[in-house]
Amino acid sequence: MNFADRLFNAIEKKQNPSVVGLDPRISQIPDSIKQERVAKFGDTPQAVAASFVAFNKKIIDAIKGIVPAVKPQMAFYEAYGPYGVEAFQITCKYAQDSGLLVIGDAKRNDIGSTAVAYAKGFLGEVNTIKGKARVHYVDALTVNSYLGSDGVKPFVDEAKNGKGAFLLVKTSNPSSGELQDLRLKEGETVYEAMAKLVDKWGEEVVGERGYSSIGAVVGATYPGEAQRLRLLMPKTPILVPGYGAQGGGAMDTMPCFNDDGYGAIVNSSRGIIFAYQKKGGEYDAAARDAALAMKRDLSDALMKKGIYPW
Amino acid sequence: MNFADRLFNAIEKKQNPSVVGLDPRISQIPDSIKQERVAKFGDTPQAVAASFVAFNKKIIDAIKGIVPAVKPQMAFYEAYGPYGVEAFQITCKYAQDSGLLVIGDAKRNDIGSTAVAYAKGFLGEVNTIKGKARVHYVDALTVNSYLGSDGVKPFVDEAKNGKGAFLLVKTSNPSSGELQDLRLKEGETVYEAMAKLVDKWGEEVVGERGYSSIGAVVGATYPGEAQRLRLLMPKTPILVPGYGAQGGGAMDTMPCFNDDGYGAIVNSSRGIIFAYQKKGGEYDAAARDAALAMKRDLSDALMKKGIYPW
Repeated sequence: MNFADRLFNAIEKKQNPSVVGLDPRISQIPDSIKQERVAKFGDTPQAVAASFVAFNKKIIDAIKGIVPAVKPQMAFYEAYGPYGVEAFQITCKYAQDSGLLVIGDAKRNDIGSTAVAYAKGFLGEVNTIKGKARVHYVDALTVNSYLGSDGVKPFVDEAKNGKGAFLLVKTSNPSSGELQDLRLKEGETVYEAMAKLVDKWGEEVVGERGYSSIGAVVGATYPGEAQRLRLLMPKTPILVPGYGAQGGGAMDTMPCFNDDGYGAIVNSSRGIIFAYQKKGGEYDAAARDAALAMKRDLSDALMKKGIYPW
Repeated sequence: MNFADRLFNAIEKKQNPSVVGLDPRISQIPDSIKQERVAKFGDTPQAVAASFVAFNKKIIDAIKGIVPAVKPQMAFYEAYGPYGVEAFQITCKYAQDSGLLVIGDAKRNDIGSTAVAYAKGFLGEVNTIKGKARVHYVDALTVNSYLGSDGVKPFVDEAKNGKGAFLLVKTSNPSSGELQDLRLKEGETVYEAMAKLVDKWGEEVVGERGYSSIGAVVGATYPGEAQRLRLLMPKTPILVPGYGAQGGGAMDTMPCFNDDGYGAIVNSSRGIIFAYQKKGGEYDAAARDAALAMKRDLSDALMKKGIYPW
């Protein structure tokens, strides 16, 4: 099935347009988890990776009934080499087996056959010596499309097989404007020009719900910009980082939604998975409470805006 | 030592401003290598990864006396999961132990603590549970800086410890212009604006030879644009893809060099490592011949332009 259909069906089922970022930082993982792995593997990247897996599995168990998707951030896994990448694999597989969609946050980008390698590696199947193999368990990948359509086409191809991509348009960070906000001769900004490209690239893979499997990343920290972008890309699902720890509130994410109450999925990472550090108690219970609070927060905002769809 | 100094010292020593891209594709690796690994590991990603390592080691042995650096393309390794990433690690370590600089072509990009994870993972040391560990053996990483300075600062920090980065400015692919060539209100293009940012970001890490450890990627397929970019970023080392298989000739790379005959390093991947498919014979001998031919080609062009520095 088309990825956008799978995404919005899952959001409808959970009545919750949010995604939990699985961004493990070893310093913030409970000591009890770490001690056991150090005892087993020594003070190594392997022990870190094993701690990530143990931590993530309990988080996934705690939130799988609440959210439609998780978004593991590849940087935190990849930093630990092969063991870290294996932890990413195991985490994604466990999430999919738990009925969750997996958005791999990797912001990959390249051209031609190299872009194909990323698309096939994360979303499709790779060539082995005699056949093919599936390596990663990812439903959609974040992609940086500074390089143009050469780098996007392989992801559109995978989108024809039920997978998806979210292309960076307007990122949530303070310095995102240094390049993205530059004004073009025609009057629009660089990020608006990018939005038009994303909208065009996604045309081929629009699903039954009217949304494309080629999405966009638009930060909750820029609600004014988001409003304009929602209009420029009406059929594009928007992945919204910046809620919670980065300072965006639920109302700030509302411009990313369409009038049908769909069209966006809001991410929170630290605010959910490390909620126990602020609230105390078991980390999985704290994550569950935080995920429920975020769901309520978004529901309230959707109601306030008069677009609550359920 | 400052990365830019290490880079241009190595180029001076080898009298060769070229880098070999280690972009293994399993379909192009000699059967003899593959058969042995399939027999040992089955038709698995592990067998592919082991084939990459065996192939790369002989390539590195063949070219280490000729070129100053190699540039493994992460996409081709990562596509095979943990085994692939281990093959990347082993390849990079083997290249460094052979006296070569390693430019990891990963085009990574993110913000804040996530960008730190990429920078520390590839170029520095990561936090283990109680201490620190080195994971990757990479001297410089390619980086996509669409996200602005938040995503670049962690790499500048690593550059203060002798490492480097090459930031995408004008890429070599046919569609690079879709975003990069858009004209800004002020009259310059997006890639020129990016070049100015790169020049500014690199100011803090200029070495004794007058070059910064924050470099740029500028495709040989756009020599006109390169000429302008060389002037906009006088202290920025330029990594030049697009020579050879992508259609750029040695003269097309000349605008990326400064009048001192330095300032650029030209990449060739398929044209070197898979030269045996066109020329026949052993793949390592063919790669050596192709690397020597490229060195002569670049030397001739530098002489023709009157900037041969050796």
